[in-house]
Amino acid sequence: MKRRQLLVGVAGSALLQSVSAGTTADSPEPIQVPADSTRVQGAGVTKLGERSPFENPERMTFLNVMSGAPLQDLHGTITPSDLHFERHHGGVPLIDPDRYALLIHGMVDKPLKFSLNDLKRFPSVTRTCFIECSGNLNIRAGEKTSPQTLCGLTSQSEWTGVALSTLFREVGANSKSSWFLAEGSDAAVMARSIPIEKAWDDAIIAYAQNGEAIRPEQGYPARLLLPGWEGNTSVKWLRRIELADRPFMTREETSKYTDPLKDGTARMFSVVMDARSIITFPTYPSRIEKGWLEIRGLAWSGRGRIAGVEISTNAGKSWQAARLAGPVLPKAHTRFTLPWKWNGNETEIMSRVVDETGYVQPTRRQLIDARGPGSVPYHLNPITAWRIKRDGEVLYRPEPWV
Amino acid sequence: MKRRQLLVGVAGSALLQSVSAGTTADSPEPIQVPADSTRVQGAGVTKLGERSPFENPERMTFLNVMSGAPLQDLHGTITPSDLHFERHHGGVPLIDPDRYALLIHGMVDKPLKFSLNDLKRFPSVTRTCFIECSGNLNIRAGEKTSPQTLCGLTSQSEWTGVALSTLFREVGANSKSSWFLAEGSDAAVMARSIPIEKAWDDAIIAYAQNGEAIRPEQGYPARLLLPGWEGNTSVKWLRRIELADRPFMTREETSKYTDPLKDGTARMFSVVMDARSIITFPTYPSRIEKGWLEIRGLAWSGRGRIAGVEISTNAGKSWQAARLAGPVLPKAHTRFTLPWKWNGNETEIMSRVVDETGYVQPTRRQLIDARGPGSVPYHLNPITAWRIKRDGEVLYRPEPWV
Repeated sequence: MKRRQLLVGVAGSALLQSVSAGTTADSPEPIQVPADSTRVQGAGVTKLGERSPFENPERMTFLNVMSGAPLQDLHGTITPSDLHFERHHGGVPLIDPDRYALLIHGMVDKPLKFSLNDLKRFPSVTRTCFIECSGNLNIRAGEKTSPQTLCGLTSQSEWTGVALSTLFREVGANSKSSWFLAEGSDAAVMARSIPIEKAWDDAIIAYAQNGEAIRPEQGYPARLLLPGWEGNTSVKWLRRIELADRPFMTREETSKYTDPLKDGTARMFSVVMDARSIITFPTYPSRIEKGWLEIRGLAWSGRGRIAGVEISTNAGKSWQAARLAGPVLPKAHTRFTLPWKWNGNETEIMSRVVDETGYVQPTRRQLIDARGPGSVPYHLNPITAWRIKRDGEVLYRPEPWV
Repeated sequence: MKRRQLLVGVAGSALLQSVSAGTTADSPEPIQVPADSTRVQGAGVTKLGERSPFENPERMTFLNVMSGAPLQDLHGTITPSDLHFERHHGGVPLIDPDRYALLIHGMVDKPLKFSLNDLKRFPSVTRTCFIECSGNLNIRAGEKTSPQTLCGLTSQSEWTGVALSTLFREVGANSKSSWFLAEGSDAAVMARSIPIEKAWDDAIIAYAQNGEAIRPEQGYPARLLLPGWEGNTSVKWLRRIELADRPFMTREETSKYTDPLKDGTARMFSVVMDARSIITFPTYPSRIEKGWLEIRGLAWSGRGRIAGVEISTNAGKSWQAARLAGPVLPKAHTRFTLPWKWNGNETEIMSRVVDETGYVQPTRRQLIDARGPGSVPYHLNPITAWRIKRDGEVLYRPEPWV
């Protein structure tokens, strides 16, 4: 609904009142609102809704290959599909769903090509889970860093598709196959090798997201979805799966997505996302007032459910258990909250998650000590602290960097 | 993303291939797609995503006061916010969030006005539940009736807000108060009387939906949300709550939303939505082919969780248990599925839900017998059957009407 349409019902009315300019991101014009909404017939029904002109959430774009979700503006656990982070290696291809096909071949009894309609005939699975990029931003922007800049390459949707195990049974996967290649139809022909156990566990070929067809930047019309694994392995615009008895050592897994360690070796196929939490409010760029407020954040683990989140409001001296909004799902963003009365003194707040395997979110110092300086900035999940100044300004507390 | 933008990366390319015209709802022009998407750089990142030009889901509008969700096109359980059904009595008001206030007064110790920011300082709750209009369509359209026409006034979101009980404690609700009035700031000043138990149970003042601010047609910036109760009681654009020791007998609850019964009496405050299920695929207007497919649908109950859904593929002669996609949440749309091999013969398929209270979804005949002819078409939740013809066409099976 554009502002023009919103105003159809009130055009020319003497009841209009102007709100100060600059309240929308995309227009310097003031938004005209009725002084008394009960005296003016409102806008009619629409085939497709739009946001209030007062709400303009946006992804933050980087280098034309990624955009991060505005975590500090989001509530609950679902990321609106048009705000879900994106990361691509050759841009977003435009694919005709009627010409789409997924080939499954290699070590199988019966290689098959599945159309999108074929995929939709199989038993479906629906699951809510997060996807996170293994390079999840960690952009150095000094104190004026928001959760979006620091951690915006994670998002959550309710996904629907067909279990990959169903398709593997259909083609007759050879019991000696131990890896499969997943290849996209983007300009990068993005491809990854995946241990076959993941296919038998919980891999999905997803064609729907948050109730509707997957969005173009999420792999329309179908993508691989590997719950809890680094995002690039959930290959988008999926066109080919090849079963084999070895990894394929693709460009993306040799030139990227390999983690050098301090002893000179490198860690490959480090695909499971470690548990991470981040406070999303109060954070930069919000400003708070003295008194009660609610600390809010997101926590997740690629290994299963969150067991708990603790929050410190005194720079790590003591910790309190946060409340988790249920249902707490495995490999899913979980919303945590804690009521807190700010007394107006300067302090630091931070969160720390423990997942059901007992894994505890580390500090950045612990990450550096374990991996050594020079490690690539992948799989970083440090405890993140926010400094609250006396005037209520909230700033990121910069930390030692790798 | 408009088609023009999508094509930026491929403009002038010799690799383009035209797809037949008429594939989009809003344009007669053919969509140009690359013949080989791997040879053309795709579109860049965007601040806000858009649907594929091949996907054009829409609400169906009626009488400029309601629009129904395209249930037959949806997957999983979340309704995209721009497709959530809408129903309003005075149009959609445009409200400035900075001028929004909710007054709570009447039988309280301390009447208070809460700004939107005030509401957001309180402990928040997040919950996924359905909202259904008590008049949920039931439009007579003969055999060519889709789930959207029949049942599109139900949708589901993940809602976030503050528990009404929290605010009632803040104002000091009088222990003798037994009802409260909820009043909207739309042109109809829509108002309903609600038994106070609902406030202490699970009522929410919601300000967020599916991760972001509530959409305008859902009550921006804040609405009442009464899980499991008929939609109109979840008053939108909420501006006032008054506590009292009697119902207020508002216009909307005397002229509407009262159900005449066959003995000449009328049922008022019939607010809980009975359990209902509906198959969403295969239904009109889809056409199916012989062989395996998956029957899919939605089931819900205003009384709690779904206990089970049964499906008949032989016009009600026998029934099989459907699979429920977890988590099965209380007062929430639950996706059910059943693999089915259609042999090409004409038949009828239908679904029947039982909720955790033991309530069984009735036939339309049972509803008519219980209430008598002339009953208003509210709170109808009949078992719905779909006829499959030999050529694979799927039609609604019309039933005796009230």
